[in-house]
Amino acid sequence: MNFLEERILKDGIVKEGNVLKVDSFLNHQMDVALLDEIGKEFYKRFSDKGITKILTIEASGIAIAYATARCFGMPMIFAKKSKSVNIDGDMYVADVESFTHKTKNQIIVSKKYLSSEDKVLIIDDFLANGCALQGLISIVKNAGASVDGIGIVIEKGFQNGGRIIRNLGYHLESIAIIESMDAQNSTVTFRS
Amino acid sequence: MNFLEERILKDGIVKEGNVLKVDSFLNHQMDVALLDEIGKEFYKRFSDKGITKILTIEASGIAIAYATARCFGMPMIFAKKSKSVNIDGDMYVADVESFTHKTKNQIIVSKKYLSSEDKVLIIDDFLANGCALQGLISIVKNAGASVDGIGIVIEKGFQNGGRIIRNLGYHLESIAIIESMDAQNSTVTFRS
Repeated sequence: MNFLEERILKDGIVKEGNVLKVDSFLNHQMDVALLDEIGKEFYKRFSDKGITKILTIEASGIAIAYATARCFGMPMIFAKKSKSVNIDGDMYVADVESFTHKTKNQIIVSKKYLSSEDKVLIIDDFLANGCALQGLISIVKNAGASVDGIGIVIEKGFQNGGRIIRNLGYHLESIAIIESMDAQNSTVTFRS
Repeated sequence: MNFLEERILKDGIVKEGNVLKVDSFLNHQMDVALLDEIGKEFYKRFSDKGITKILTIEASGIAIAYATARCFGMPMIFAKKSKSVNIDGDMYVADVESFTHKTKNQIIVSKKYLSSEDKVLIIDDFLANGCALQGLISIVKNAGASVDGIGIVIEKGFQNGGRIIRNLGYHLESIAIIESMDAQNSTVTFRS
């Protein structure tokens, strides 16, 4: 069992409807030592890919992507969820449904910060049905850049997002993959 | 002139309507070395305050708060802008108007992560009219905790947010305070 799986068993809370709450250490309150550890782990797994940019989506991906970008010494970009009046000029746009919020959003990245030269590592906190990730991949492809790695903190292995992305040939690594959860008995089983 | 003022002059873009675009290094694409520097600067200015928690608001405050929390070795929390189905239980809530997005939001922090024992450092990227900051202060007060410092990356000194907060007796430090901006001539003048 790795450091993250141990932490999930210690502090994660399983709720009905396959909800895993990790907001005491990952996506509301954040444990900076754990995030540093996650950044190092992604660096270990993708350091040979020639990565030039780290890409994530607001909001809970940002600190994780930053922790990762520090290890790579490369800039990070976060895709924004709605058009801000402070962003003008040309943008890459993709549609994303949110499983958590039951909403549909556009996500945008300024064309200035992704070019066809870029080798991109996509980072996010959760992967379930993969809608956010598909949007991010679509933005990288629109830029003519390449997706050279995808690093996920927690993957819900019983949903099909990860399988689809791997079937498409992407190099996707999740630090913890949950095989099953049981709210009744408060148990989490990881894929080995 | 400090490191941030130099960077703003080099890479910031002044737009009509007193808009300063710093999305090439601060709030869309992020320069991790600069963010590390900002975190260290806040640590230098508030390290004697006995800070126990770093609080910010999604989205662009998150990486800055994380860079700061690393230096303090304390957890960070980010206030969320809308009620997520993954957050239940008791929450502190405040109303916040967004100058940038022309919208009104509720921001929320779980009661689990702020207690009356906490000495809080609030961190954000921009301070203009101060609505977001007022909401964060209100949340800390509702928790019975104390606001022992407020660290802002860029303050628009010609708007009244900073003056109000300082008049109320808070220890507010901004790394760069803009006295005036001129889109016609692309100039930025800092408060010395």
